[in-house]
Amino acid sequence: MTERSVVHATFAIDRIYEAKPARVFKAFSDPDIRDRWFVRPHNWPVAEYSYDFRVGGQEKGRFSPNGTMIVLNETTYWDIVPDARIIFAYAMYIDGKRISVSVATVEFKPAPNGTRLIYTEQGAFLDGYDIPAQREEGCRDLYERLAEELARMPADA
Amino acid sequence: MTERSVVHATFAIDRIYEAKPARVFKAFSDPDIRDRWFVRPHNWPVAEYSYDFRVGGQEKGRFSPNGTMIVLNETTYWDIVPDARIIFAYAMYIDGKRISVSVATVEFKPAPNGTRLIYTEQGAFLDGYDIPAQREEGCRDLYERLAEELARMPADA
Repeated sequence: MTERSVVHATFAIDRIYEAKPARVFKAFSDPDIRDRWFVRPHNWPVAEYSYDFRVGGQEKGRFSPNGTMIVLNETTYWDIVPDARIIFAYAMYIDGKRISVSVATVEFKPAPNGTRLIYTEQGAFLDGYDIPAQREEGCRDLYERLAEELARMPADA
Repeated sequence: MTERSVVHATFAIDRIYEAKPARVFKAFSDPDIRDRWFVRPHNWPVAEYSYDFRVGGQEKGRFSPNGTMIVLNETTYWDIVPDARIIFAYAMYIDGKRISVSVATVEFKPAPNGTRLIYTEQGAFLDGYDIPAQREEGCRDLYERLAEELARMPADA
């Protein structure tokens, strides 16, 4: 039997994007834009993907970073305030083992040069399969991809 | 427009029950038992209630503590390890306003005199409608009701 353990941790990523809140929010709400920076930034083979961005809607992505290991992400959206806030809960699985359950808050605040985005993840990391520092590193990478995406998108009018 | 704000907080309730883990777990998995200590401990009028205790299953409860204010709880179960662990995400609403979104972990660990139960809630408290200290107080009260329920249940064989 697996040794059961839980590590609870909270981390935050707080950064400025040079784009208005409506444009940063759109990079989450528009499936095509989000696909580029969130779903396929590293060109991992995607076996399955669905996205239903509304309160109560679900997202499911099954990927294989190296062609053998299977990573599954299941997300439910709990709170959406256009241009201001998104809250979702999500679980991650590796090869069928549930490795974490988290609640994540994304806040979009107007800033002098664009938007201050604060991503806060409160997670339960399970049975030694993942550690908070690794998750935080993965999220920081995604928010760097978002910066690249915003640089490619048409500028604010 | 409502002023949007989020307070993130984590709290834990850590206590011993004089009952084996299987019996404490059953107070969550058995709808009749759970109804007594969790759903109706204070005899609030219950307008709507459903409970589907399985991974991916949902729970929904609509109550009115004072006959006018409407409290709604929506829960999704993310992880269930029989006799050992339950993880769920839940949102609370008062009069239609979403006041929090949380992930909660319940761990059941064998202890010399029964079970050590650790309840850890990681919550996002929204727009000033609720505060973590109040939520913690409400949860402590429920876990006191669980102690009373276990005292009423047949003892371990």
